[in-house]
Amino acid sequence: MGHLITEKKQADLFTAHDPLTLDCGKLFSPVTVAYETLGTLNADKSNAILICHALSGDSHVAGKYSASDKKPGWWDNMVGPGRPFDTDRYFILCSNFFGGCKGTTGPGSVNPDTGKEYGLDFPVFTVDDMVRVQRKLLSHLGITSLLNVAGGSIGGMQVLSWAILYPEIVRSVSVIAAAAYTSAQAIAFNKVGRNAIKSDPAWNNGDYYEKDAPEGGLSIARMIGHITYLSDESMQRKFSRNLQNSRDLCYELSDEFAVESYLEHQGEAFVERFDANSYLFITKAMDYFDLPGKYGSLENALKAVRSKFLVVSFSSDWLFPVYQSKEIVRALMRNLKDVSYCELKSGYGHDAFLLEADRLGRIIRGFLNRVEG
Amino acid sequence: MGHLITEKKQADLFTAHDPLTLDCGKLFSPVTVAYETLGTLNADKSNAILICHALSGDSHVAGKYSASDKKPGWWDNMVGPGRPFDTDRYFILCSNFFGGCKGTTGPGSVNPDTGKEYGLDFPVFTVDDMVRVQRKLLSHLGITSLLNVAGGSIGGMQVLSWAILYPEIVRSVSVIAAAAYTSAQAIAFNKVGRNAIKSDPAWNNGDYYEKDAPEGGLSIARMIGHITYLSDESMQRKFSRNLQNSRDLCYELSDEFAVESYLEHQGEAFVERFDANSYLFITKAMDYFDLPGKYGSLENALKAVRSKFLVVSFSSDWLFPVYQSKEIVRALMRNLKDVSYCELKSGYGHDAFLLEADRLGRIIRGFLNRVEG
Repeated sequence: MGHLITEKKQADLFTAHDPLTLDCGKLFSPVTVAYETLGTLNADKSNAILICHALSGDSHVAGKYSASDKKPGWWDNMVGPGRPFDTDRYFILCSNFFGGCKGTTGPGSVNPDTGKEYGLDFPVFTVDDMVRVQRKLLSHLGITSLLNVAGGSIGGMQVLSWAILYPEIVRSVSVIAAAAYTSAQAIAFNKVGRNAIKSDPAWNNGDYYEKDAPEGGLSIARMIGHITYLSDESMQRKFSRNLQNSRDLCYELSDEFAVESYLEHQGEAFVERFDANSYLFITKAMDYFDLPGKYGSLENALKAVRSKFLVVSFSSDWLFPVYQSKEIVRALMRNLKDVSYCELKSGYGHDAFLLEADRLGRIIRGFLNRVEG
Repeated sequence: MGHLITEKKQADLFTAHDPLTLDCGKLFSPVTVAYETLGTLNADKSNAILICHALSGDSHVAGKYSASDKKPGWWDNMVGPGRPFDTDRYFILCSNFFGGCKGTTGPGSVNPDTGKEYGLDFPVFTVDDMVRVQRKLLSHLGITSLLNVAGGSIGGMQVLSWAILYPEIVRSVSVIAAAAYTSAQAIAFNKVGRNAIKSDPAWNNGDYYEKDAPEGGLSIARMIGHITYLSDESMQRKFSRNLQNSRDLCYELSDEFAVESYLEHQGEAFVERFDANSYLFITKAMDYFDLPGKYGSLENALKAVRSKFLVVSFSSDWLFPVYQSKEIVRALMRNLKDVSYCELKSGYGHDAFLLEADRLGRIIRGFLNRVEG
């Protein structure tokens, strides 16, 4: 299947100059937002869909900027002409979230007051703060209603926030491989990842933009994270105990198993494209996400939502396990909300939301048809 | 229940001067072994039980050296007068394994040829090599038959090696929370832990014994490992999303959840008592453990064993999951060996082998009675 070649060669930019009130209590401005749109907004502006990306994603959701691009956008198998998020029918919008490092203002952006990168002066933000910034983008674009807000992982957390913070705007939501709160185990993995970054001398208390970045620490954080995105089953199937280069054990302390080389490569590729400070702040935002804690109970959190809900979980996802999706579904049902739930059997672990495009696509397609109908 | 106060105040030492032929092909000597014995060897030397410790364990398996000791030996809830490994009936032997850092020769020991610690000059060793060293200790003690060899985790891997390498000596084995091979996921976690140590500038290519140890890196490795020893369920039950000090989120990047403080403490305590180079070599030995790979198939690996087998797994253990124990049991059954298997329902994850003493103890007791009878 060919890739859509987008007309624009890079993300659009919008800057909000009026101060944003963050959950931490601080006022923050200006905020520049990098975003991508695909498809055409219809006359009554009723076909807009917002897609929220996960930790390492960005606004480039689908298509290629040019035919020679190595890779298309991160959810290209789900978004495009004739695809589940069909750009022939829908106006698709995706923005790099607040605090990221792909065009939207984050800790690596220059603070106009100092002429220097924010680094640790950047405010600690929440998933709700990310959503507030997306809301400003919508106003800028004149969009007053969203047919659907969709996302997986921390993208799914943003989706939940959307349904709760802006019930009047959101007609439906697709919450995929997500959770209403970050578990102790997930916080633990994030904590160790942050520790690895902070332990790297190059991190220099977040002040490294003129020097070498803390690549060693960020690489370790990424490798830890990456293991949690896969599953025991998928790793065993993909790598088993295969050796990378040799037929025999080398009896040295260096990497020799294929799974080690794979992880090493994941770490190396990540530090090329990601900012370590953003990693610290984004994982903190994820750790803070806690609907039951914020609203007293999950049932209470979801009392005022008006969206139709689609909730999808994957059987081998152990970062946001099936039971966490079921908790969301049960809370919605107790509130007599319109909710469809699907647990997909998949060996791909958490990453299934990026890989199980066929089956996930059929579900999304059917759900969007029902919401439109 | 009071603790046995052992007569000896520290581990016994034995030094083997004849060279050990290691799996890597190198000859190695001398090897000093730190070991502890509890109970009395009977006249016909038929009541000896060897206990193999796990990654961070040592020869101090049970009891206290003095009443003022903070903690007894690592398996005190299982070993002692009247306990499942009953020191009134059995002669219990436990030694720090080869490559460790608790008295047995390891990378932190002084190489007599150079007068300097081995560091990375220490040979890469295997679980079989650990067992070969234990075999030398047995000869030294004049023990020609073992009633049982027992151990959990990498201790259970040593147990499997014992049954295969020395079938004529071992009357029975207890393989607890173990596996016949290290999975891709477990190798991945070990790899990232090793990376964290090697990325610490203080590691200095393993040459740090006269300077500061790579505590930051070792602490990260320990924290990663520690998460894999617990379970999602046990972490959620123990820590939930509780904050450590405050009632409110502090909106800073520092640790604030209770689970973060707990892990931090685990990391800090570990670096006080463990050598980073030992951690590198031991996890490598674990990664190399692969009975199906070494013998062509697990069935083949277990063809010549003569021991009665007890295999125990724990339902929430995701480091050495239940299916890996079942693979051992199936291979034994196909070989028509005497095997008892028990899967214990437990929320404690891999650490259950240290914590589920009541239920594990009943199983061990019954098994040992049957072996003796």
